Amino acid sequence: MKYKAFQFLENGYIEAIDQRKLPFQKEPFLLKTSDDAFYAIKEMVVRGAGVIGNIGAIGVYLAALESRGDKHHVEWQSELLRHARPTAVNLTWAIDRMLTKLKNNKNGNSIEPLKKEAIQICEEDKENTIAIGKHGFLLIEDIWKRNGKKKVNILTHCNAGYLGIVDSGTALAPIYEAKKNGIDIHVWVDETRPRNQGSNLTSWELSQEGIEHTVIVDNTGGLLLQKKLVDIVFVGADRVTAKGDVANKIGTYLKALAAHDNNVPFYVAFPVSTFDFLLSDGLSEVEIELRGEEEIKYVHGLDSKGNYKKVLVTLADTKVANYGFDVTPNRLITGLITEKGICGANEDAIRKKYLN
Amino acid sequence: MKYKAFQFLENGYIEAIDQRKLPFQKEPFLLKTSDDAFYAIKEMVVRGAGVIGNIGAIGVYLAALESRGDKHHVEWQSELLRHARPTAVNLTWAIDRMLTKLKNNKNGNSIEPLKKEAIQICEEDKENTIAIGKHGFLLIEDIWKRNGKKKVNILTHCNAGYLGIVDSGTALAPIYEAKKNGIDIHVWVDETRPRNQGSNLTSWELSQEGIEHTVIVDNTGGLLLQKKLVDIVFVGADRVTAKGDVANKIGTYLKALAAHDNNVPFYVAFPVSTFDFLLSDGLSEVEIELRGEEEIKYVHGLDSKGNYKKVLVTLADTKVANYGFDVTPNRLITGLITEKGICGANEDAIRKKYLN
Repeated sequence: MKYKAFQFLENGYIEAIDQRKLPFQKEPFLLKTSDDAFYAIKEMVVRGAGVIGNIGAIGVYLAALESRGDKHHVEWQSELLRHARPTAVNLTWAIDRMLTKLKNNKNGNSIEPLKKEAIQICEEDKENTIAIGKHGFLLIEDIWKRNGKKKVNILTHCNAGYLGIVDSGTALAPIYEAKKNGIDIHVWVDETRPRNQGSNLTSWELSQEGIEHTVIVDNTGGLLLQKKLVDIVFVGADRVTAKGDVANKIGTYLKALAAHDNNVPFYVAFPVSTFDFLLSDGLSEVEIELRGEEEIKYVHGLDSKGNYKKVLVTLADTKVANYGFDVTPNRLITGLITEKGICGANEDAIRKKYLN
Repeated sequence: MKYKAFQFLENGYIEAIDQRKLPFQKEPFLLKTSDDAFYAIKEMVVRGAGVIGNIGAIGVYLAALESRGDKHHVEWQSELLRHARPTAVNLTWAIDRMLTKLKNNKNGNSIEPLKKEAIQICEEDKENTIAIGKHGFLLIEDIWKRNGKKKVNILTHCNAGYLGIVDSGTALAPIYEAKKNGIDIHVWVDETRPRNQGSNLTSWELSQEGIEHTVIVDNTGGLLLQKKLVDIVFVGADRVTAKGDVANKIGTYLKALAAHDNNVPFYVAFPVSTFDFLLSDGLSEVEIELRGEEEIKYVHGLDSKGNYKKVLVTLADTKVANYGFDVTPNRLITGLITEKGICGANEDAIRKKYLN
C-alpha cells in the first residue's frame, strides 16, 4: 500500500518520508524494526496525530515480524511504542487495536494478521480524511458563495495535512477539497515555532498541490483576524475531550481567542478516534508534553552554500521551556469536523452525535 | 553622556551598541552623520521606541554638524529621519522638538544647541524610565505581598528594556526596580519572531542584570497564563491612542487576549511621549508597518563553529508577509504605566490624567 506520507514495501518493511528536513530535502526513512518505529515517532521523523497512530500500529506489526513468534516481545514493544509521544491519543488507540488483534489471533503466526490490521487502520484514516474534507468543504463553499465567489482566506496552524494523517489530512482536507472543486483559496500558514511545521511541512504540502499560501510568524494571526483578512480558521487536534476541549499544537489557543474576538469561525478537524471520552475538562486533565530545550535553541535551515544546517538562536546557557501543546476551551470553537460530519463543541452535541 | 544603549563621544560623534548581533556579539556602531542615524534606525542597528527617538534627535544634531551652517540641509535630513520607521511616534515627536529648537535658535551656529537638546531628550527619557519603574514596581510588590512573598512570575513580549529606552526601559523598568528591592522574580521572555528581540535582547539584558528568566516561543504564553504560571504581564508600546488602544510589536494582542481570558493583569508601560492624542481607534487609525520578507525567511544565530550565520528557514520562493505591529484594544488592558503614574486604559481616565 502506498500513501503520501509512507508506503509498505514489497519486502515487508515500510518507507516513510523523513519529515525532519522538509521542505529542503525529501529523504526516505526505512522502518525495519519496532525500535525504528519508536525512534521515528519519538524523534518526529514522522509526526501528526494520524500518522503517529499508523506508525505505532506498524511498529506493533514490525515487533511481530522480529519476534520469532514471541508474543511477549510484541506486547513489550507495544507498551514502549505507546509512550513514544505522551499527548497523542491516536497512538494509544491504534496500539490497543493491534493488541486486541494479537490477542484474538488464534493462528500461530500473527505477522500477516497484524500487517493487515495496520493497513486497515491506514485505509480507514484515508477514508476518514476524505469524508472530513467533504464536510469541511461545505463551510468554505458557503463563505465563497456569500462573498460573491471571491477568494476565500483560510488560516491554519502547525501541519494537519497528509504528512500528518493519510491521505488528505484533517485541517487541510477541506482546503484540498476546495481546490479540487475549483474554489479560489489562499491559506495563511503559521510558521509554528519551535519546530516550524507550518513553514516546513504545510507550506511544502500546499506548494506540492499548487495552492496559494503565505507563511507568517505565529505572532501575526491576531492582526490578520482583526483586519478581516481571514474568513475561517481550520486546525487539527491531538486530543479532544467529551465536552469538546481541544489539545493541539502550542499556540492554537491564542488563535482561537483571536478568532473568537473577531467573530471569525474557528473549526477543529480530526477523526473520531481523536476523541478521548474519558476526559472532560481539557485544561486540568490533558497532560501537556514538555519537550527538549534544543528544539527552541536551534533553528534549522539552509546556509549560504545550500547545506542543511542548524544555528543556535539563544546563548547556550539560556534557560528555555518547550511546552508542546495547549488546550483550547470549547467555548472558543465554532464546530468540530469529523468523518461523521460537523457538530458544536459542547457536551450535549458531542454526546448526541457520537455516544448514542 | 553615557547611556547603556549608546554614548556621546568626546569627538562629537555617537557610539551605539549594534543590537543586530546580540546576544552573540556586542559590537559598537559609530554614528558620524545624519545618514548613519537614518541607517541605524531603518536597519534596526538600534530599535525600541525611546532609543529610536533619541537617535532621531541625534540625527538632527549630526545633520547640523555636517551642514556647514545650511539650515535647509538640517530640515531636509530631519524629514528623511522622520520616515525611517513609520510606526514610531517618538521619532516624529523628537524630530519636531529638534526642529523647534533649530527654528528658535537665533544664534548662527545651531550645533551646540541641538546637541544639548538631544542630550536633554535622553536625560528626560532616563528620568521617565526610573519613574515608570517605581510606579510599576508597586504592582509587583503588591502581588509579592499577597502571595506570601513567593516568587513573582512576569511575562513580557519583545524588548522594552534599556536597549529600547534609556536607561531602565519601560516594560522591564518595574522588573529592574523589583530586583533592586530584593523581590524574588522570574521573567518569561517571548522569543518574539521574526527578529527575536526577546531571545536576543531581553534575555541578554536580564542576564546582564542577573535576573532569572526563561525564553519561550511566542506560542507558549497562552498555556502559561492558563496554567496560572504568570502573575502579571508587562509590555511596552510604540503608539498609544487617546482612548488607550496600544500599537506594539506583532503578537502583543494575542498575549493580551490570553491574559484577559485568564484574569491576569496586563499592563502597558511607556513614556507620555508615546501617546498620540490625535488618534482614537487604534485598529483603524494606526498604520501597520509591513517589513521585508527576509526577516521571516532568514534566522540568525551561531553555527557549529561559533560563527554568526543566517539560515534560510523557508524555500526561497515561498511567499511570506511580515507585519511589524498589531493593536491591542483598550478593553484588554488593565492599566497604562507612564512616568506620571498608572491609569486605566480608557478615554476618560486618560483625558483626566494627561489632558487637563
